[in-house]
Amino acid sequence: MGAELLRLLLVHPRITLTGVTSDRLSGEPLARAYPHLRGLSDLRFHDLEAAWLAEVADVVFLALPHMESQKVMPVLRARGKKAIDLSADYRLRDAQDYVTWYKAPHVDAAGLREAVYGLPELHRKAIATASLVANPGCYPAGAILAMAPLVKRGLARLDGIVIDGKSGVTGAGAQGRTIDPMYLYTEANENVQAYGLASHRHTPEMEQELGALAGAPVRVSFTPHLIPLNRGLFTTASVPLARPLGTPELRDVYREFYAGEPFVRVLDEGERPATRAVVGSNYCDVAVVADPRTARAVCVSAIDNLGKGGSANGVQNLNVMSGWPERTGLDAPPVYP
Amino acid sequence: MGAELLRLLLVHPRITLTGVTSDRLSGEPLARAYPHLRGLSDLRFHDLEAAWLAEVADVVFLALPHMESQKVMPVLRARGKKAIDLSADYRLRDAQDYVTWYKAPHVDAAGLREAVYGLPELHRKAIATASLVANPGCYPAGAILAMAPLVKRGLARLDGIVIDGKSGVTGAGAQGRTIDPMYLYTEANENVQAYGLASHRHTPEMEQELGALAGAPVRVSFTPHLIPLNRGLFTTASVPLARPLGTPELRDVYREFYAGEPFVRVLDEGERPATRAVVGSNYCDVAVVADPRTARAVCVSAIDNLGKGGSANGVQNLNVMSGWPERTGLDAPPVYP
Amino acid sequence: MGAELLRLLLVHPRITLTGVTSDRLSGEPLARAYPHLRGLSDLRFHDLEAAWLAEVADVVFLALPHMESQKVMPVLRARGKKAIDLSADYRLRDAQDYVTWYKAPHVDAAGLREAVYGLPELHRKAIATASLVANPGCYPAGAILAMAPLVKRGLARLDGIVIDGKSGVTGAGAQGRTIDPMYLYTEANENVQAYGLASHRHTPEMEQELGALAGAPVRVSFTPHLIPLNRGLFTTASVPLARPLGTPELRDVYREFYAGEPFVRVLDEGERPATRAVVGSNYCDVAVVADPRTARAVCVSAIDNLGKGGSANGVQNLNVMSGWPERTGLDAPPVYP
Amino acid sequence: MGAELLRLLLVHPRITLTGVTSDRLSGEPLARAYPHLRGLSDLRFHDLEAAWLAEVADVVFLALPHMESQKVMPVLRARGKKAIDLSADYRLRDAQDYVTWYKAPHVDAAGLREAVYGLPELHRKAIATASLVANPGCYPAGAILAMAPLVKRGLARLDGIVIDGKSGVTGAGAQGRTIDPMYLYTEANENVQAYGLASHRHTPEMEQELGALAGAPVRVSFTPHLIPLNRGLFTTASVPLARPLGTPELRDVYREFYAGEPFVRVLDEGERPATRAVVGSNYCDVAVVADPRTARAVCVSAIDNLGKGGSANGVQNLNVMSGWPERTGLDAPPVYP
Repeated sequence: MGAELLRLLLVHPRITLTGVTSDRLSGEPLARAYPHLRGLSDLRFHDLEAAWLAEVADVVFLALPHMESQKVMPVLRARGKKAIDLSADYRLRDAQDYVTWYKAPHVDAAGLREAVYGLPELHRKAIATASLVANPGCYPAGAILAMAPLVKRGLARLDGIVIDGKSGVTGAGAQGRTIDPMYLYTEANENVQAYGLASHRHTPEMEQELGALAGAPVRVSFTPHLIPLNRGLFTTASVPLARPLGTPELRDVYREFYAGEPFVRVLDEGERPATRAVVGSNYCDVAVVADPRTARAVCVSAIDNLGKGGSANGVQNLNVMSGWPERTGLDAPPVYP
Repeated sequence: MGAELLRLLLVHPRITLTGVTSDRLSGEPLARAYPHLRGLSDLRFHDLEAAWLAEVADVVFLALPHMESQKVMPVLRARGKKAIDLSADYRLRDAQDYVTWYKAPHVDAAGLREAVYGLPELHRKAIATASLVANPGCYPAGAILAMAPLVKRGLARLDGIVIDGKSGVTGAGAQGRTIDPMYLYTEANENVQAYGLASHRHTPEMEQELGALAGAPVRVSFTPHLIPLNRGLFTTASVPLARPLGTPELRDVYREFYAGEPFVRVLDEGERPATRAVVGSNYCDVAVVADPRTARAVCVSAIDNLGKGGSANGVQNLNVMSGWPERTGLDAPPVYP
Repeated sequence: MGAELLRLLLVHPRITLTGVTSDRLSGEPLARAYPHLRGLSDLRFHDLEAAWLAEVADVVFLALPHMESQKVMPVLRARGKKAIDLSADYRLRDAQDYVTWYKAPHVDAAGLREAVYGLPELHRKAIATASLVANPGCYPAGAILAMAPLVKRGLARLDGIVIDGKSGVTGAGAQGRTIDPMYLYTEANENVQAYGLASHRHTPEMEQELGALAGAPVRVSFTPHLIPLNRGLFTTASVPLARPLGTPELRDVYREFYAGEPFVRVLDEGERPATRAVVGSNYCDVAVVADPRTARAVCVSAIDNLGKGGSANGVQNLNVMSGWPERTGLDAPPVYP
Repeated sequence: MGAELLRLLLVHPRITLTGVTSDRLSGEPLARAYPHLRGLSDLRFHDLEAAWLAEVADVVFLALPHMESQKVMPVLRARGKKAIDLSADYRLRDAQDYVTWYKAPHVDAAGLREAVYGLPELHRKAIATASLVANPGCYPAGAILAMAPLVKRGLARLDGIVIDGKSGVTGAGAQGRTIDPMYLYTEANENVQAYGLASHRHTPEMEQELGALAGAPVRVSFTPHLIPLNRGLFTTASVPLARPLGTPELRDVYREFYAGEPFVRVLDEGERPATRAVVGSNYCDVAVVADPRTARAVCVSAIDNLGKGGSANGVQNLNVMSGWPERTGLDAPPVYP
């Protein structure tokens, strides 16, 4: 996630990258840890010191393990710095949820109160004036965008929503520190596996945002899967319909809902959503199909888990917070293939 | 599918492979089309002639395109030959379903009436005396085995079942004739895509068998996906529970249901189902987890789409039909990794 | 190759893309053939008509099959248009080589005489004033850059050079028209194969350029391989040394030779060249190691076959021809991972 | 390597598997570490104790890290047990080579003296009576079989041999203990890299065996590469010819040399060697092509690095040592795809 952010920020026309931190790599040149950046930056990793960060930067992206951001954030905020947090630490509005899902109380209640959930398609106005933005989790980003029009327009029944997520391996968390053998090439290649059955931490995040759209509580059955690709996250949601609707009507609802959105593309009939069409970009491709046999809609989305599901969406947030055009630094087409 | 069948039959201790057919490759040595078989067989492809097949073989496997098997089958049956059909032609009991889902009437009503659905875990007795066995589709094999215990025991609510299938590219149909660009390396690699949204032909097959288990009609919302791996099919089914049950109770139901099955392995708590554990074999690994928040169960299975989802299951059917031990020719462990 | 060119040109700050041609896709919107470009261009494919091209464009990129460019080129040149040819049609200076390696006489002798070989690291001055630039083949680009410093400085013995190339599948040629089963996912995935043994058409191209650098004829033993990845081309060349040299001295020769080059990065000791560090970019990473046991040097390079081995190098040529800074439109970092 | 050995031994008709050891996994059921073996064995890992091994087994396979086997071996040999060592510890005949290439003196000089290099195609007779067999390294197995006929028949010039090896990631060593980030999915996938430039430890092993075939010292320039696939090892060797020979003559030399070999297949003209044709088996497919332009031959081979390059070859050695037919337990066809 951090590497992708560097890739984007190094050529963002309004940004100067002034520092990067890593306790593990402290002192090392950026380009040694990330050989693709050879010759593109002279920066070296600095210890993770909130005070130093507040000194060198106006805006800080935090890509720390969960429960770590909340230790750094108060220092940044005390110095009046804006922050975009890529961890889960400020995504859930109810502090109790951290106890339930992350097994620890939240230590920055003040920050949590002011944090804005950083999905511009839902919260653009609040993000524009926010000083602390919580970038969405990759699965929630894909799932929420796949279903938001249906839920917001009251066309979904709120019981019986089932969400299936398939993520590339870069979505899997840190490579530093200890390595889970699950992420070894020989374990992940030529393999599909489900994990976090009925217990993945992105579940309450989806329910929070879908519930806010619906104006009523939502419970979802969510199952994530690890798929053998580097980047890409595909979401398939099966949503019971509140009333009979055909595919063309559903598509119209989506088109209207996402009209003007710079990074959401609603597919035409016969177009098949695929992660390869968005990899390397901030796009989210969505499609919806009615299944009259089951009185459900199949809602699918394709994102890059490091793009709309992570760093690129973080840059979009930065643009919104800064009053810049939202495509600034994000207009390179997806990389195909 | 045909290549995998050859791999298994060439070393099956009770079988002599007497002929292979292909109109496209007629006259070519087997080992030219399938270089891995160099030195392992002197057979050459023969034209697809039912009369010739009936002459050289006692049992015939048909791995033809859909709607083609039903043209060949009557000839084989008239000569008293047993057949195992790997296509969809004899899977659906209601001839009208072929009109609905395959857009053509079935031309072998007599065969269809006598055909047995070839999933030994459900229909072992009928298979043992059958002369025409319809080998299941790959997605139905995975989906039915994932849910059968719940449905059979009356623990599932029959509305609201959602099934998500993820298949490797060998599940994608013929390589001969015209090639769909979707199956090119550069299109399928580093890509995930859904297809057949709300319209995949394996849907009625799942509903038929689950409905028979339940003793009542079942409708499922099924979405298949193409995943970048050669072999492997993972099924994730979300099933509403008829009454509250915990994971241990659910697991006990599965263990009891599959007790004695030679090729179904019910995973222990904490074991994660994964396609790599079954690739190259006839195994189906299943796991079930309760999700009390949504009053649902998550039922998952992992198979090799060419194994339990195809040719190896066909060999198991042959063993059952022939009165041989079911593991005959199928006891090689999965190939890991 | 064409898709990658579109990806680059659509955001090149000095370019307006005025037309794209394809006989097969004529009339179709660009974004239907290339779904990643949805919303990024309103262009539709036009028939391949040289006269039309000459009308709408000042500079034309040709990404046609070999032996096709030479039919279009004379028309463009007659109208005074500049052209960058991505095929092999203008790479070999000796027209007789086309008869030998491409089995057909060249039909545009005038164009061939004026064409400049488009590797800026070797021919920058000539490219700057050229009107017809022949973009290098992917294997030659990698191989020449891996060895140029040794050969140019007279440090290589010219007999006994052995070159091993490993290319991703996008290097494999057109997806339109007929599809070679070799490029199907299930054939290319989990597979490595050599092809064109002792007969690949990129061989004379390498020998021409290395010979020009050496001032003497060069013969190379070259073997290309197809590797299961989308993008990336790795070259390993074993070069007999004219006199004993250690790794540090060799590296100094490389550093001096490539000083100031915007897209060649000479690796430090202990840095391991890898295609992932250059994918999506125009970079070529090179490393050299002495093998005193065999009196040879091991010279390796990593490029993106669609980048420095294709379209991005074509854009660099365009920049040189146009007098623009060479990094214009090419400064996005490689995409990792 | 150990997992593959278990896969083979569990169904070898002449073998009873009586014990497996692992200090790290001691006490764990085999099937927990290797989920594909669920239900196939009740064994648990035992501490690595040579005395215990000598008690439970007649023959021992050692798949230990280099420099570890030589600590265990003397105990086994003192008890009169036969052993097949999959590490490098007994491959090099000159003890001094261990100091040079492995940076440590060998501690079992007696064992080293009696060890036989376990490539049946070269040393069948010696293996048949050996009590300690050193199974070849994966790269040497591929390289030696690719060139042996040329070298043995005096058709190769012994200077100027260049060998390029490409291995899947299972060739990369242990997954236990510390994990090199190089083997993470996101690092190895969509990537090609060279390593061990001019310094790989398999080099002296190749030179020893090729030198013995030639009856004169041989020096090779060898470069190994890591390729994104699980299994498979492809070798491309460029060999200067001692006198002009065409492809048909070279192929005849290979056919004669390998006549009767159960696991070497010499390809016909036009057949392209590929790792997918041998994966999961003990086969080595070889092809040879003359390159008259450079007075060289291109010699290629494809093996499964865990097959002929490892465990399956170990089982062949066991069969030879035991006087069983060499295909015993190894006759399952390769797994395609």
